[in-house]
Amino acid sequence: MGDNTFGTKFKITSFGESHGKVVGVVIDGTPAGLKFDLNYIQSELDKRKPGQSKFTSTRKEQDKVEVLSGIFNSITTGAPICLIIRNQDINSSHYEKSKGLLRPSHIDYVALQKFGDFADYRGSGRFSGRITAGFVMAGAIAKQILNIFNISILAYTKSIGSIEDTEDHSVDNLEHFIRLRENSPVRALDLELSKKMEKEIEISKNTNDSVGGTIRCVINNVPPGIGGPIFNSLESNISKGIFSIPAIKGIEFGAGFKASRMKGSEHNDPWTIKNGKIRTTKNDSGGIIGGISTGMPIVFTLAVKPTSSIGIVQKTVNVKTMEEEDIKIEGRNDPCIVPRAIVVVESIAAIVILDYLLIEGIVPSVLED
Amino acid sequence: MGDNTFGTKFKITSFGESHGKVVGVVIDGTPAGLKFDLNYIQSELDKRKPGQSKFTSTRKEQDKVEVLSGIFNSITTGAPICLIIRNQDINSSHYEKSKGLLRPSHIDYVALQKFGDFADYRGSGRFSGRITAGFVMAGAIAKQILNIFNISILAYTKSIGSIEDTEDHSVDNLEHFIRLRENSPVRALDLELSKKMEKEIEISKNTNDSVGGTIRCVINNVPPGIGGPIFNSLESNISKGIFSIPAIKGIEFGAGFKASRMKGSEHNDPWTIKNGKIRTTKNDSGGIIGGISTGMPIVFTLAVKPTSSIGIVQKTVNVKTMEEEDIKIEGRNDPCIVPRAIVVVESIAAIVILDYLLIEGIVPSVLED
Amino acid sequence: MGDNTFGTKFKITSFGESHGKVVGVVIDGTPAGLKFDLNYIQSELDKRKPGQSKFTSTRKEQDKVEVLSGIFNSITTGAPICLIIRNQDINSSHYEKSKGLLRPSHIDYVALQKFGDFADYRGSGRFSGRITAGFVMAGAIAKQILNIFNISILAYTKSIGSIEDTEDHSVDNLEHFIRLRENSPVRALDLELSKKMEKEIEISKNTNDSVGGTIRCVINNVPPGIGGPIFNSLESNISKGIFSIPAIKGIEFGAGFKASRMKGSEHNDPWTIKNGKIRTTKNDSGGIIGGISTGMPIVFTLAVKPTSSIGIVQKTVNVKTMEEEDIKIEGRNDPCIVPRAIVVVESIAAIVILDYLLIEGIVPSVLED
Amino acid sequence: MGDNTFGTKFKITSFGESHGKVVGVVIDGTPAGLKFDLNYIQSELDKRKPGQSKFTSTRKEQDKVEVLSGIFNSITTGAPICLIIRNQDINSSHYEKSKGLLRPSHIDYVALQKFGDFADYRGSGRFSGRITAGFVMAGAIAKQILNIFNISILAYTKSIGSIEDTEDHSVDNLEHFIRLRENSPVRALDLELSKKMEKEIEISKNTNDSVGGTIRCVINNVPPGIGGPIFNSLESNISKGIFSIPAIKGIEFGAGFKASRMKGSEHNDPWTIKNGKIRTTKNDSGGIIGGISTGMPIVFTLAVKPTSSIGIVQKTVNVKTMEEEDIKIEGRNDPCIVPRAIVVVESIAAIVILDYLLIEGIVPSVLED
Repeated sequence: MGDNTFGTKFKITSFGESHGKVVGVVIDGTPAGLKFDLNYIQSELDKRKPGQSKFTSTRKEQDKVEVLSGIFNSITTGAPICLIIRNQDINSSHYEKSKGLLRPSHIDYVALQKFGDFADYRGSGRFSGRITAGFVMAGAIAKQILNIFNISILAYTKSIGSIEDTEDHSVDNLEHFIRLRENSPVRALDLELSKKMEKEIEISKNTNDSVGGTIRCVINNVPPGIGGPIFNSLESNISKGIFSIPAIKGIEFGAGFKASRMKGSEHNDPWTIKNGKIRTTKNDSGGIIGGISTGMPIVFTLAVKPTSSIGIVQKTVNVKTMEEEDIKIEGRNDPCIVPRAIVVVESIAAIVILDYLLIEGIVPSVLED
Repeated sequence: MGDNTFGTKFKITSFGESHGKVVGVVIDGTPAGLKFDLNYIQSELDKRKPGQSKFTSTRKEQDKVEVLSGIFNSITTGAPICLIIRNQDINSSHYEKSKGLLRPSHIDYVALQKFGDFADYRGSGRFSGRITAGFVMAGAIAKQILNIFNISILAYTKSIGSIEDTEDHSVDNLEHFIRLRENSPVRALDLELSKKMEKEIEISKNTNDSVGGTIRCVINNVPPGIGGPIFNSLESNISKGIFSIPAIKGIEFGAGFKASRMKGSEHNDPWTIKNGKIRTTKNDSGGIIGGISTGMPIVFTLAVKPTSSIGIVQKTVNVKTMEEEDIKIEGRNDPCIVPRAIVVVESIAAIVILDYLLIEGIVPSVLED
Repeated sequence: MGDNTFGTKFKITSFGESHGKVVGVVIDGTPAGLKFDLNYIQSELDKRKPGQSKFTSTRKEQDKVEVLSGIFNSITTGAPICLIIRNQDINSSHYEKSKGLLRPSHIDYVALQKFGDFADYRGSGRFSGRITAGFVMAGAIAKQILNIFNISILAYTKSIGSIEDTEDHSVDNLEHFIRLRENSPVRALDLELSKKMEKEIEISKNTNDSVGGTIRCVINNVPPGIGGPIFNSLESNISKGIFSIPAIKGIEFGAGFKASRMKGSEHNDPWTIKNGKIRTTKNDSGGIIGGISTGMPIVFTLAVKPTSSIGIVQKTVNVKTMEEEDIKIEGRNDPCIVPRAIVVVESIAAIVILDYLLIEGIVPSVLED
Repeated sequence: MGDNTFGTKFKITSFGESHGKVVGVVIDGTPAGLKFDLNYIQSELDKRKPGQSKFTSTRKEQDKVEVLSGIFNSITTGAPICLIIRNQDINSSHYEKSKGLLRPSHIDYVALQKFGDFADYRGSGRFSGRITAGFVMAGAIAKQILNIFNISILAYTKSIGSIEDTEDHSVDNLEHFIRLRENSPVRALDLELSKKMEKEIEISKNTNDSVGGTIRCVINNVPPGIGGPIFNSLESNISKGIFSIPAIKGIEFGAGFKASRMKGSEHNDPWTIKNGKIRTTKNDSGGIIGGISTGMPIVFTLAVKPTSSIGIVQKTVNVKTMEEEDIKIEGRNDPCIVPRAIVVVESIAAIVILDYLLIEGIVPSVLED
């Protein structure tokens, strides 16, 4: 349980609602002695915030991070760090209207079943993608620490609708790609494909529809030996974290579903020696064998469903009358959630990997100068 | 952490090795008052055991379940239940030979990194698929309880290599399919496709190669309202459990990766009323919205990689000499692990769902007559 | 682990520092549908806040509770509730001076060992008794829910220094005593003994010294059958929570240490029938047998050490010079922490008991009208 | 929860019943590379087993430890270790007779409330002190590892009834006392007091009564900085573990309840320098300040209640008739449980401290030669 707490030694607790006062996170287990970089956290939040391009919701939020605890003289103390952003542009008018009418593939019905009539429905409350701002704040701290240990993370838009980047970008120099990605409003690595993806989103937007996509994430320089068989497998804990992000409906590691159509002789990654280190000549295992890191890049790909809030008339049920009715959803919704989810995926990846490294004692609980 | 413990209120702890004395499990949190059905547990184990057909390893094991604790007068007492099977046909000769040579995509290198030189390497020790016999014993108890609450689970072979069953089998009467499946040595539902799948495995076997596949799992009658947003999502906890099964490299819920290529207007499941109950007209959500059950069948699909142990000569490294060498693996390996993994998938699904129902208080801690 | 998170289904996460911006708590697992009573939470905080009498620290804090999340239309939603109080009267001047000099029985040395030089030392930071304001806010919510289920909790000052209330106050009507207690500035039940206890504290205060005491806590109407053998015992979980309160150095249940000098024939509590219910004729077991509630009042007693910050010159070590020096501590310290700790003890008791009742399904996750 | 699982990184799971097939434990998190000393585990079990002296139950059990998993070539592998002892001298005849009659201060009533009619009542089932044999097996492994890190643990009988050893035995050389203690059938350190304590037990035995006592435990050489404020305090986790031992009804750290009658100027432990190390001149804090180890010996004292099973006629209730009746308990019960509990207390202490050291990374997950 611990519905809103995640992690073992690096443990985050999420709170807040989409249209409440704040969205926040308590981050417990950050090593003492880390120079706290508020600007970096802000720059990560900025990648997620709404209104950053024409491809995102028009809700206007500054998403300015505030520190409530855990920092002293701009350095982490080892105490829990509480960070919040305030909700400002709260326009709940659209949401109220739809009470009773169940939005298709949206949370009205399940929220009712779980929380009775009591859930804060405004802007989807706890179910809103806005909650992931807390993951990003925690992830930014995790990334900062991982960087000290030379571990870097890149997520990018692999596909939007039918437009897919099929190239393998799991290379040594992720920094280059991270910079490249920021030139693409949809966070693709190939700028020509980016334009096609943008087009795909625009079409959806203009037709009051939405579109899905896939995200690939690459984690470089995780030392070999992290994870474990069965319940401690890297796949188990990464997927547990990743599926906390709304709209994710699939995950595959390395070759993933393609592996299911392969023979062992194709799929097996031969061991080799490169610069005196044991590596594999290819990486269909996605950097994980037996639940444990091989030292190769950890690679996984995610399926993101199309946003459920669309402006097209849909069939549904009114729970008050128990009769079928039409529904037309208004509101400020993203036609495609993929571009804003990129930084959230990186954040969860960072949180999970840092937790492992703290548990294994590779990252100490006090960072010395 | 708790590398070998899984679950909150229905909690299983795994122990044992492939070529050690036993493989076992402690099951904590089983409600008191359940008529303990040893035969059912045995019948479930029999679906997983080796040597059951020409498509499985030739290792000969009875896999006879023994009760060490938790049962009194053939009824569960509420105490932890310890169940074991003994290892009998232990032929470790092949394994010893390969010491130093890293089998491609196998656990030699990662085990060395994690456990030093100390891991029990015989038959892959803790990494062996044999460990999942413990999941099956625990799962059989979970299934028995879920059946009382009218919840049933079906997993089946959706594809082997390129042969795929594309039909949607998430129907009301799973019992029919469970029986049908037992007529197929590869655990497919369509007996004609089954024959093609068998052929696919035979070809791999005859060429000393292996082949992957996919498994679909359907869970019927989970009440709506189970799960939660973010860290308590059904997807999070199901995937965490599922990736504890060796060789699983991907999971998707409902339409999954296909959803990434869909528009919202296609993907959204319209609400409707059927027999006075709120349902959806289709189920691309896989029975889960916002991390919470909708009351529709929970559906997920898994990617299973081809067995890494193959008899074909492969390139690799000898960690003792740090030189590249060829390796040819001998041993009694499954050419395709999918058919034996079916019951393991159902077991994990049962364990996760029962845990939720116990936590929610839907299944009580004492079962009255 | 989870150094700052406590509980399973009713889970609290503590954050904040004594002289930082805030002290706060995230409360996860509160049932949806509870009418949120901010005034009650404030009245509980008022029992803990400094400056409330001449027997407490002169630090001036309003300790006004603010809600950051989890409440909608004045009702709990089932979402995590974040509550904070702000720190206002921050005078850290005294604390800075003592850097290097280890205050005897104070946290300077252990904080240095655990957090390096990085801990927020102002007002003892995370080690401050002020952190328990978060326990009180969470406890107030827990108490409100327990009251619905007819469970009430009373803690009181059993002794200050050598002045002890030896009467057994574990009676049916705790409400009477709760009111009575509020007439005593030291939170004793016997108003004559209260005066003697006040005198004891005044003497300590006037001599720049401090004094310890004991607290008794009684919980009425916990249904029989809560808890469990070994690791789930009521004693295990109550004590784990209670020792989270600074300055507590001992706990005993029922007859406790006195039981160690008794014979079985004296100590055993005979079963009897009272108003058709099974009860015991006395309660040396403190309402707990085999780790499980008997239905009798749960009774435990705590040892509180004298405040370590005293104004008398003491011998100590300067860690910078590694030489022995004298130290004279200045600051605004309580001469006796017992009176303010009373409400904290009740709060922890409420948190632990509610967690059990939620886990057992006795308190549901949605409170219907 | 996890009613039968305890610990974070060194995690034990208990199973078995007093009169079932076995009593066992799964020990997860033992570092790989430890030379496994079966004889040492047996010697620890022998200190707990019944029938070892005239002061203990006459039940005859060899309590011979068997290894089911986790050991390969006599070395730990990092896999979960399952250890069992078999139950042999099972005479349940006495227990059956008393069905319906509630033994005073015994578990009949609470077991009924918690587990319905289904609990294994024979020999108290899961509530039996025999379950602690699992703690001892796990503790023996923990002690072996702690010894490598120079940490030693001594528990001893501080009092039986009114006979008390008031001397402070928290000295540097615990080994001397451990040997001395083995000369005392009641596990006292002072052999003259031992004789008086033996007498005290004999009197109880001869009058069909029982008697309580106290146990002191000293842990030497725990490095400073272990533990934490609030929920991670050493007192919290030690007490949680200790109260898992049946019959323990109180715990105090350092001066404990005596501290409640002291002034700060008496209780505070002045810091000093000894052999270049920071120490305190006395140890009323019991080696713990702010929940964190000071580097001084960790000292705590336990209250053990008199065995509830006595041969004297007692008043009670028959739950079947709901009428009051007399009861006279027969069976093979210890007149005083203190001597056999000594090794159990040491075991729990070892388990808790090792868990901290693994979490802090002080003990690594692979022990190199």
